[in-house]
Amino acid sequence: MKHLLLFALVFEITTSFAQPKNLVPVQVERWGRYEITLKGPSEGNPFTDQWVKAEFQQGARRFSVNGFYDGDGVYKIRFMPDATGEWTYTTKSNHKALRGKTGAFVCTASGAGHGPVIVAGTWHFKYADGTRYYPFGTTLYAWTHQGEQLQEQTLQTLAASGFNKVRMCVFPKYYTYVEEEPALYPFEQSGVPMQTGGQAKWNWDLTRFNPAFFRHLEKRIDDLAKLGIEADLILFHPYDKGHWGFDSLGEAADTRYLQYITARLSSFHNVWWSMANEFDFIKSKPRAVWDAYTKTVIDNDPYGHLCSIHNGSVYYDLWKPLFTHASVQNGSAVADFGRAILLKNALFKPVIYDEVCYEGNITQRWGRLSGEEMVHAFWQGIIAGTYVTHGETIESHPGDTLFWAKGGKLRGTSPPRIAFLRKIMEEGPGPLELADMWKDEQTAQADTNYYIIYFGKQMQHDWVFNLPKKNAPAAGARFRVDIIDTWNRSISPVKDSFELAQPDGYRVFDKQLKKIQLPLRPWLALRIIRVENKKQ
Amino acid sequence: MKHLLLFALVFEITTSFAQPKNLVPVQVERWGRYEITLKGPSEGNPFTDQWVKAEFQQGARRFSVNGFYDGDGVYKIRFMPDATGEWTYTTKSNHKALRGKTGAFVCTASGAGHGPVIVAGTWHFKYADGTRYYPFGTTLYAWTHQGEQLQEQTLQTLAASGFNKVRMCVFPKYYTYVEEEPALYPFEQSGVPMQTGGQAKWNWDLTRFNPAFFRHLEKRIDDLAKLGIEADLILFHPYDKGHWGFDSLGEAADTRYLQYITARLSSFHNVWWSMANEFDFIKSKPRAVWDAYTKTVIDNDPYGHLCSIHNGSVYYDLWKPLFTHASVQNGSAVADFGRAILLKNALFKPVIYDEVCYEGNITQRWGRLSGEEMVHAFWQGIIAGTYVTHGETIESHPGDTLFWAKGGKLRGTSPPRIAFLRKIMEEGPGPLELADMWKDEQTAQADTNYYIIYFGKQMQHDWVFNLPKKNAPAAGARFRVDIIDTWNRSISPVKDSFELAQPDGYRVFDKQLKKIQLPLRPWLALRIIRVENKKQ
Repeated sequence: MKHLLLFALVFEITTSFAQPKNLVPVQVERWGRYEITLKGPSEGNPFTDQWVKAEFQQGARRFSVNGFYDGDGVYKIRFMPDATGEWTYTTKSNHKALRGKTGAFVCTASGAGHGPVIVAGTWHFKYADGTRYYPFGTTLYAWTHQGEQLQEQTLQTLAASGFNKVRMCVFPKYYTYVEEEPALYPFEQSGVPMQTGGQAKWNWDLTRFNPAFFRHLEKRIDDLAKLGIEADLILFHPYDKGHWGFDSLGEAADTRYLQYITARLSSFHNVWWSMANEFDFIKSKPRAVWDAYTKTVIDNDPYGHLCSIHNGSVYYDLWKPLFTHASVQNGSAVADFGRAILLKNALFKPVIYDEVCYEGNITQRWGRLSGEEMVHAFWQGIIAGTYVTHGETIESHPGDTLFWAKGGKLRGTSPPRIAFLRKIMEEGPGPLELADMWKDEQTAQADTNYYIIYFGKQMQHDWVFNLPKKNAPAAGARFRVDIIDTWNRSISPVKDSFELAQPDGYRVFDKQLKKIQLPLRPWLALRIIRVENKKQ
Repeated sequence: MKHLLLFALVFEITTSFAQPKNLVPVQVERWGRYEITLKGPSEGNPFTDQWVKAEFQQGARRFSVNGFYDGDGVYKIRFMPDATGEWTYTTKSNHKALRGKTGAFVCTASGAGHGPVIVAGTWHFKYADGTRYYPFGTTLYAWTHQGEQLQEQTLQTLAASGFNKVRMCVFPKYYTYVEEEPALYPFEQSGVPMQTGGQAKWNWDLTRFNPAFFRHLEKRIDDLAKLGIEADLILFHPYDKGHWGFDSLGEAADTRYLQYITARLSSFHNVWWSMANEFDFIKSKPRAVWDAYTKTVIDNDPYGHLCSIHNGSVYYDLWKPLFTHASVQNGSAVADFGRAILLKNALFKPVIYDEVCYEGNITQRWGRLSGEEMVHAFWQGIIAGTYVTHGETIESHPGDTLFWAKGGKLRGTSPPRIAFLRKIMEEGPGPLELADMWKDEQTAQADTNYYIIYFGKQMQHDWVFNLPKKNAPAAGARFRVDIIDTWNRSISPVKDSFELAQPDGYRVFDKQLKKIQLPLRPWLALRIIRVENKKQ
């Protein structure tokens, strides 16, 4: 599949303590990762006692990049160069062993990597190199906290899927279907856990991070990058229930954590910051903290990665310029025609319906969409110029991992249909918008040469060729039509072609009022593509 | 009808030049209007040469209120007291004849008047005295620019209707169906209009307002107040087509106009500021001016009247704190279930769908809703906790005034049904919200004692009593049900009563699974009201 060709570059170059001079300069691909490694003090608490950063420079451009303590007396500063050519750096620190280090490297053109995803044209996305990016995400909240074998299986599943974004939590999750202890924790323990009534009571030292935990997370983010998958990284979530207490560390520890993780991860080109999942369900954090937390992330990320906050039942202030896009939970918004567009038009930024309930068969109603409903949600989103994220909560046999929680295998019927839609989008000329947004909720267009009409559940024996007058090309334009069966993944070209007559009211028809025969099935769409006019 | 009893108080007290002392103090009802009249210079250009204002004081509270020149050497300062008791004032001016005037009056309790409408509880409205206000508006863009007889007929029509808000333009309108010259213009002419090709070319002196124009507007706003109707006053609109040029006066003249009209009208309790109709269609004003214009209005309105801006096809930044509520054009948002709520939940302010197309029979598609579609739009809005505004474009015979444009008579089928809905709302305990917003788009509740379920087009022979579990009262709660025919305006009580069982999944049923027989008609709703539990 196409996306498998997008092997992202994850070059990690380590410079050891001092940059040798007059040698062939170190090379890093554009949007790859350059890493300075410095030896420094390990006594006291290096996490809080020391700070180190570097100023990277190319011509007049300067990036101030925070470093971090990686344990065992090792300090690192990571940088993602966004322009080819020579870069130099100088380190700064409160400790003499870490400051005043200088060096240089050469940034080369990227190979297959497209760089980070950025916002393009108000409502859509592209890679930094200009390649179009349409988010087709899935949900894997706690996949990195499972056994290694399961994590590898998850990666294999992703490699064979059509997903190009994963919503995943930094902190482990304690919730129905996911109650296992992870192998690694983000903080050091300050003593032996106390057993109280059979449950461990954790004594975290919130001033000391566990570098192994973060190195593992980084490996998995790089694994996703190799598959061309963006890591929509959830920095806080409410699924703790007092078990580890990671949802209620307090403002000082939260802020230290945000500074630490942004220092470690901002140089990863495929990272997106999701400030929270269901922020409003994290009862220990008042609404007022989220602006400050988001500013901490933004201020410590030199590259401006995509940044959002995801709601439970009450939205955050999605319009705030802090957020590059809206990450919305609301299944209803993509359950039927005429809905998905409403939020988008008010926000003037991309909208991703990042939780629309999950394809599944569990008791909870948010986990029992049919595959048809999930695929329909994706089509509803895409024709309105918005995006939708998948999740799966299928338990076919006792002990099945639910993909949404732990990863493992996908069992649902929607993923191949979602991949099919992604392929259609990537073959098309650009993102879709409703052509006549308040009067025709089915007809989308990329431009005047390319339309998609989605019929949803509606079945009909035939369809008279017609388009909205609004944003249509002039009379005489010729089109061909493909009948798309969104469920059976077939594309059937119609042999005839169609020529626009003069508008009739608010519609334009084929000048001979030609019809297309349609199979009497639901979930059909039409792809209508401009063709050259025949010679007279 | 109930709203006719809400005769708003419009007391206008004129003090002549100097306040006599040791007499019975002048009395003004709360939210009435106190007016200081001063004689000052008439030479030069008093509109631009002089300024006058007054500081009104009661205890520690002070209001700085701008005055205005009313022609013939007369200057006025108007004040709407919002608290009973004695108020004093002192005038300030750049001219000695106008400054240092002092006086006092006594504000008495209001009679029937409820005061200005304000925002209540994030998404709704109330009057300043706490009385609930549900906007049920209509559209009368150019009614004050028609002949006096037609204006009087419009007022008679409104008096007999259920509307309690009118969207109306300050400037006359030049557009299809409305091309007559008004009797009065807002500016003085600086010379005789030049005839060029049969069309008058106007020579406005944009530094001199025409007080008669504004006095007429004020009379009509007071006429609406007497009917309990809010004047949603549109300060700018695009319907000029280069005829008078009132849509493109330039920023300096626009700002003078805003200062003048806010000085004249802020003391009118029933005024709302609508910065524009279809702001994005006013091509002469870049988007950037609207924040500044809105700030001018807010800064010159001491009372914080409701303030909004209405869009054509592209919204303004509705979330900005400048705007007390969202005034939205979008018929699609209330054309079907599950839509109206989406914008509201993102904006955290009241949403009024102020233009949803019009009931009518004209060629343009925005003017050809059926009465059924218009009434359905109102119900869609109200069950989602939003509000909808009516407009009528019916031309039954050539020469008919279209109510939307000129006023006159209402000819449509929707107004009595809208009045019926208003009556239902005003009899209820409070505004509605969807009880289970993303899973049940039909069931609204004011609280756990009061539900409205709206079925729209759906017809069914019977209905098994059930409510969403979410936000439902505990098992054992008893309810009675009224079957509402929203089109035929009937309310039929169901003889039986219903008792909630324990929840079954996400719904709660009557403990005997009782059903209600329904007439096989569309446009039905149910009103479900808690009753006292019977003694066992």
